[in-house]
Amino acid sequence: MKIGIIGGTGDIGEGMALRFSPRYDVIVGSRKEAKAIATCDLCRETLHEQGLECSLLGATNQRTVDESDVIVLAIPFEYVAPILKALTGFEDKIVISPVNPIKRATYFYHAPPPEGSAAMMIAGMLPSSATVCAAFNNIAAGRWKVLGEELDYSVAVCCDDGDVKQTVMDLVNAVSSLRAYDAGPLAAASIVESVTPLLLNIARFNRMRDVGIKFV
Amino acid sequence: MKIGIIGGTGDIGEGMALRFSPRYDVIVGSRKEAKAIATCDLCRETLHEQGLECSLLGATNQRTVDESDVIVLAIPFEYVAPILKALTGFEDKIVISPVNPIKRATYFYHAPPPEGSAAMMIAGMLPSSATVCAAFNNIAAGRWKVLGEELDYSVAVCCDDGDVKQTVMDLVNAVSSLRAYDAGPLAAASIVESVTPLLLNIARFNRMRDVGIKFV
Repeated sequence: MKIGIIGGTGDIGEGMALRFSPRYDVIVGSRKEAKAIATCDLCRETLHEQGLECSLLGATNQRTVDESDVIVLAIPFEYVAPILKALTGFEDKIVISPVNPIKRATYFYHAPPPEGSAAMMIAGMLPSSATVCAAFNNIAAGRWKVLGEELDYSVAVCCDDGDVKQTVMDLVNAVSSLRAYDAGPLAAASIVESVTPLLLNIARFNRMRDVGIKFV
Repeated sequence: MKIGIIGGTGDIGEGMALRFSPRYDVIVGSRKEAKAIATCDLCRETLHEQGLECSLLGATNQRTVDESDVIVLAIPFEYVAPILKALTGFEDKIVISPVNPIKRATYFYHAPPPEGSAAMMIAGMLPSSATVCAAFNNIAAGRWKVLGEELDYSVAVCCDDGDVKQTVMDLVNAVSSLRAYDAGPLAAASIVESVTPLLLNIARFNRMRDVGIKFV
């Protein structure tokens, strides 16, 4: 299974590349191929220092879509629509959305698009043969990149296709100590995305860092 | 500090009476006083069996409001407006909302009123000298009543008044192993309420019971 990370040079994307590539073939995508290649070189170095083998390739976002089976949109909500509009070839692909539409006033809040969630908006923008799955929404960016740090969190996964959901849950369960939970159909992704501004508020108002959740 | 529980004869209300009354003076409120008194008798018996002293009084909802410093609205969302419309005397009171506006299709979802959350709707219905605080929203009803069961959960607390928020956080921290977290102003309560349908979905789709959360 080849995993492509759109936005693979950002914090979460780079962290995902580090965490996925010892086990899966990973393509790091960027608008600029050179930047993607540089990120891969950096990740490879970090992994080799830890004695870990990896399969990493830097590419343009378009090549990342073309050559991957599973595509993770590791990009901020406001870039999702323009980036997706510039790309083709999502037919029959699995698309993972860890995207959270969030705004900030004196506190963080969920600011979903008219479709109800980023995940539903993304599904509406892609060909009907693509299957969108919400996952990895509630893990702090700061935790992904520190390879030595255990990710001991619960991950809610929403999808309308049972087989795709299981594939993505297996991917979640393969990363550190993450534990995947079936959180229902894609329409239920709104309440998963809205957990992230809650965690940001908890961090902010209690002077904590990188707060995550566990279902107990 | 006297704590009044509107809806004190329901599952969550009765559980709160059991958990609060060994430490605080508790008034259990109901539309029918006799029902409230019966619930108090039951709770007193359960607590005495465990060798615990308690301060419990059964009363009408109106007397509960009149004689309490802190009033918990332990009622389903659909009853909140009619019950509040029938009551007076909330001036200068602390009002705790554990209320979650939830609907169910093939999955559970957050269905807030036009005010954005149950908590904001409640604040709009009460006199301006009352202070509304969202708390205890994400604890499964089934866990409250079993006194022997540890409540080892995180509790997000939203309120616009810092002193009231601290009072309510102290109350949360006094119950079993609950741990209170400042989750921002009352306007942020929407994303706290929306965690509950997520937990119900997690329980449903993963064959679990009484799922709660911890911020980690």
